[in-house]
Order: sequence, then structure tokens, then C-alpha cells
Amino acid sequence: MAAWAERLAGVRGVLLDISGVLYDSGADGGTPIAGSVEAVARLKQSGLKVRFCTNESQKSRAELVAVLRRLGFDISEGEVTAPAPATCQILKERGLRPHLLIHDGVRSEFDHIDTSNPNCVVIADAGEGFSYQNMNKAFQVLMELETPVLISLGKGRYYKETSGLMLDVGAYMKALEYACGVEAEVVGKPSPEFFNSALQAMGVEAHQAIMIGDDIVGDVGGAQRCGMRALQVRTGKFRPSDEHHAEVKADGYVDNLAQAVELLLQHADK
Amino acid sequence: MAAWAERLAGVRGVLLDISGVLYDSGADGGTPIAGSVEAVARLKQSGLKVRFCTNESQKSRAELVAVLRRLGFDISEGEVTAPAPATCQILKERGLRPHLLIHDGVRSEFDHIDTSNPNCVVIADAGEGFSYQNMNKAFQVLMELETPVLISLGKGRYYKETSGLMLDVGAYMKALEYACGVEAEVVGKPSPEFFNSALQAMGVEAHQAIMIGDDIVGDVGGAQRCGMRALQVRTGKFRPSDEHHAEVKADGYVDNLAQAVELLLQHADK
Repeated sequence: MAAWAERLAGVRGVLLDISGVLYDSGADGGTPIAGSVEAVARLKQSGLKVRFCTNESQKSRAELVAVLRRLGFDISEGEVTAPAPATCQILKERGLRPHLLIHDGVRSEFDHIDTSNPNCVVIADAGEGFSYQNMNKAFQVLMELETPVLISLGKGRYYKETSGLMLDVGAYMKALEYACGVEAEVVGKPSPEFFNSALQAMGVEAHQAIMIGDDIVGDVGGAQRCGMRALQVRTGKFRPSDEHHAEVKADGYVDNLAQAVELLLQHADK
Repeated sequence: MAAWAERLAGVRGVLLDISGVLYDSGADGGTPIAGSVEAVARLKQSGLKVRFCTNESQKSRAELVAVLRRLGFDISEGEVTAPAPATCQILKERGLRPHLLIHDGVRSEFDHIDTSNPNCVVIADAGEGFSYQNMNKAFQVLMELETPVLISLGKGRYYKETSGLMLDVGAYMKALEYACGVEAEVVGKPSPEFFNSALQAMGVEAHQAIMIGDDIVGDVGGAQRCGMRALQVRTGKFRPSDEHHAEVKADGYVDNLAQAVELLLQHADK
């Protein structure tokens, strides 16, 4: 593999995944990953552009940012690209009025969206909200539409909580896709539109940007398909087998965000 | 299309779907389809072999037969091929101990099955039982197995009740398949093994048998792929577009079971 200087040359903007990179989430509010609070601060002082790019869809951006600020992170709502606000923009642009199958924690993001007489379904990680009754209602709304539109905030298979593995929105998206014979539109990583909106907000081109994440497929593979570089951290959902993934090879593997930032400050934009 | 005499020549055994052919199910116990009670009686008196082949998996065979007998049908448990008993046989043959995600109405079929320390998951139309908690538990059991085995009683997308369309087991099967990266084994129509077990129980070869059902894909297409002939009735979930289906063409379309039996008695085994 090329030297870090070569791999990081010309980087002007950094996209940071949040969960598993900045902190580990949990019912207790979560714990910062060692060195990450300082790493974010150093990155912001360096002159490199920084944006946070997350698939979090159980919390509003306001709540997510409040959690992170309590942990000591320098972060504001305007710096976060997240699926719910991206979805709201799509809904407005296309005149879509959603039936919402979402978690209560993210509902405030949709406060200004017209949900009367729905002409599409928006599904997010609803957790316990994925009851048979709620799923059947979403299914019935789709079946009554001449052209069913299903928008899914991410398509993760599962995630890890302190209590164990938890089914993520992707499983329920697949259930509705099969029952209705439709294909969902995914808003969130690894969708190229989602990465591109984060790049646009940051004001850098894909070839000048690098993604730092813990998910070899969603973060690393997704960013690379958009023409960005990508590093995987060995924190969060990282597993040793990720370094020998059959389809995705990161531009580098680092122990954590602190090491990634150290390398970037040495070699980026030189 | 060939004359009925040609299409029905040599038929010695008849497989009958139940819901949508014999009766329309519902919370009130259901309603027999006009002429079907008499048609079953005539068929049984004719000397043709008869077997009932259903994907019903919310009720035990005992309960299903009790419902049908109350409606006037001549039917006994031993004449019914259904997914739950077929699954029990597979479990025993392969030494599988299931975690059951099923409807309470069918639980008695599994009374003699060892469910301790599960090494597979069996999923059936659980209705309200498809809570997030129950789905997550089934998911966690599968993820803890070295070789995850998922058995699904049918793979229907949805069915119709008086209250509207209802998500069927297939949707939840797809959710678990995606989350765990496995492919389910389907027990029930249109699985060839399932049709073949019904033929075996009836003691006739596929080329001597005809299936009568209301589902163009699950009944008609499935039976034809096993080398049987198949008629579609214009009752139950039949829709006019079924007669121009892109992939499946029945050997004949009839208004209802009564008409099918009338034709069979005229032309079969001549």
C-alpha cells in the first residue's frame, strides 16, 4: 500500500461518521471513544473542512447534537448531514405527503411536513414501533397508491446495542418491498445522493474529500463509489474480518479517529 | 385450447385448495362458497381420489377441519396436507429444535416438538405476533447459530380479510433473510416437496393429478411445475387479470369448484 503521504495528498474536506467513530451510543446517553473529542477539535482548528455524515434516524439532529455536546464534542446542527432532513427536502421537492413509520425520537424533524392524504410511505428505524399493526398500515397505504413510493432512511440490516443485536430498518424495508412488489428509495449512506449532498454542504469535490467511518460497506464502500477516499476506524462495529472484505478495501485502516486525524494533519493538502 | 375431454383425460386424483375454493375465511368462522359443499361430496363419491392441500398456518388442522365440518363439508384431519405437520416431520427427520415464531392457533401442532436450546427458527403467519420484540428474538436466535436454518410456512405476500389486506408470512421471512444473510426453506405451496407429499399421501402420480385453487402462482404455477395439471377457480383471491398472467397459464379456468367437479365427473379417467 502506498505511503500515507500519497494516500492523503490533496484532501481538503473530511466527512465523519458519528456512531462508532465519535461515540458509542447507548441507553445511558453513550460514551465518547477515547481521543475523539480532542480529534474533532484539532480537525476543526486545522483549516480542513469538516462535516458529520450519519445514518442516525431514531433521534432528531437537535437531540443527537445535544447528546454529543454533553459528551464534550464541538458540533452544531448545521454541520450534520442526516437522513431525516434529507428526506424532508426530497418530500418537498416532489410534492410527497408521507405516511410516517418512524421512531418518536425523530418525529420532530417532520413537524413541517404535510402528512394528510398520504401519497408515499417513509420508513425509518422505528424500533418497537415496528408492530404488526403499524407495518400493516404502511403496507395498506402503499397498496392503495397507483404508483407506490417507499422511502427508507438507510437500509441497515442490524446494529449493536448493549442489550444485543437489534434488527434495523433494512429488514422492514425488505418486508414492504416484497409484499408490495416495489423497490425502496434509500436516503442515507451508502446512497450516492446522500454522500453528494454532504460534499455539497461542505463545498469540496469528491476527489478532495475523505470519509472516516466504522462500517466497511456503508461508510467506506459507499464513499469510494462516489469517488471519495475512505478510512475505516477499528472502533464501533469494526470487526477484524473487515480488513479482508471480499468487495471493499479501505484507503487505510486506523485504530481510531485520533490516529486518523494525526495522519491527516501530517499529510493532507500538502 | 383443447377440449375439456382432452385436458382432463387420465385424471385419477384431485388436490383441493381450501381457503377461497371451499370457503371464504373470516372472523365470523367463514362462509362456504356456493356449491362447494355439494361439490366435495360428489367428488368423494365419484371414485376419484381427493386430498386437501392448504397453506393455512394460523389454525391447527383440527381447528380448520372443525370449522369446515360446521359449514357442512365432508372432511377429516387425515385428508389434509398442511404446512405445520409437514414442518414437524422435517424437524424430526433432521433433529431440528425450533424457536417458534407462530400464531397461537397453530401452536398445538408443535406440542410434541422439542423446542429447548433451539437450532433453527420456524416462522409462520403470526399476525399480531409479529411484534418487534418477537422478530428481534427470532433474529437473535438465527445470528447465534453457526449454520442458521430458517423454515417458513409458506411465503405469501399478503391475504385478504374482511377488514382489508393483511401482510402474510412472506414479508417477515424476507426481513429475516435480509437481516441474517440466509435463504429460508419454504414448507407449503408452491414448494415441490409439499405438493409431492400431498400426491404421495393420495397415492397418485403427478401426471394423474390435478390441483384446483384460487392462487394463480401458488396453486396453479406450483402444481404445474411438479408435473400436475391445474385449474383456477374464479372465487377467493382470483382476479380477472390472472387469466392473462405473464408467467402462468392454467389448464383451465372455471367459475367455481362446482363447475370444476362437474367437468371432472364428465371427463376424468375416461
